[in-house]
Amino acid sequence: MESDKVIRERRSIRNYSTRGIADSVIEELIDLALHAPSSMNGQPWHFIVIRDDRVKDALVKIKNTCCPLEKQQYQADFLKKAPVVIVVCIDRNKSYDRGVENAVLAASNIMLGAYDRGLGSVYMSAYKTGDTYLSEEIRKILNIPLEIDPVSIIPLGYPDETPQKKTVKYVKEVISRESYNSR
Amino acid sequence: MESDKVIRERRSIRNYSTRGIADSVIEELIDLALHAPSSMNGQPWHFIVIRDDRVKDALVKIKNTCCPLEKQQYQADFLKKAPVVIVVCIDRNKSYDRGVENAVLAASNIMLGAYDRGLGSVYMSAYKTGDTYLSEEIRKILNIPLEIDPVSIIPLGYPDETPQKKTVKYVKEVISRESYNSR
Repeated sequence: MESDKVIRERRSIRNYSTRGIADSVIEELIDLALHAPSSMNGQPWHFIVIRDDRVKDALVKIKNTCCPLEKQQYQADFLKKAPVVIVVCIDRNKSYDRGVENAVLAASNIMLGAYDRGLGSVYMSAYKTGDTYLSEEIRKILNIPLEIDPVSIIPLGYPDETPQKKTVKYVKEVISRESYNSR
Repeated sequence: MESDKVIRERRSIRNYSTRGIADSVIEELIDLALHAPSSMNGQPWHFIVIRDDRVKDALVKIKNTCCPLEKQQYQADFLKKAPVVIVVCIDRNKSYDRGVENAVLAASNIMLGAYDRGLGSVYMSAYKTGDTYLSEEIRKILNIPLEIDPVSIIPLGYPDETPQKKTVKYVKEVISRESYNSR
């Protein structure tokens, strides 16, 4: 699919059909992730591919425990129905203090590649700024070593919903020239 | 261009020709950015489009001042030759503690859209974790209000270099199943 079309049409999907995802497709998505830019070309990524319901359950529990009050309509239970969940991690020793950015650039490629293959996905965070509880619990669930940090959680599945086109802001509302206040 | 091709072939470009970039192209890129996912669909983005050499000079100075020792080969001087620089900002009140992730997802769309249009780009950070100096200096240069944070700096220009294909890791090196150590 054309790149612009993928970027414009991709929507966050939280309802998945029971159709499974071939390992070869997951590996294609991870290969796309590996083509993201990274600080000093450190390529600090590691990807944990989860298909086991018990592991998904554990992730759901900790995500719900850490769900802030204002996001209560976004409980993580839907994740159990995703046939595959990819947790994007980074190696702190290879990410030059840019681990979050490196991980998110890779996660973006996964989500765009997923849409291009008919898959739905949604971006979820594996850490909370200023509070290590969420990431440390995820570290325990997935046996992630101390020098590696989980950053993003990407559930994947063939969509069981057809979301409407998203209404986005007009460019003129969000742009300024040379300085914040100069439109 | 096919989405996979854009993702696989895009390289970071730091040498730009003198060819200018039409405003219409910049607005297309910002529209692509607006199609990124955002926490609670807050669409917290603001984009500052810089063409003025004095503003670019000020950004170069502060980026070089804050350049860590291990990144000295990545001085920011090249940015002066980029005909356009986009600074991606987020509104903290609309980003639910996910400002960095929201900004990077938008920046990713800009960079992919740029490559699809024959433009080069490179990802640069407008903040440093645990140290507000860089972001506060950028705030002063661009008159960014206190509730808005600069996150990413994306120089754009038609390439004056032809980088080689990037060698990325093999998927099997960076993947595990269910748990970090299970390949």
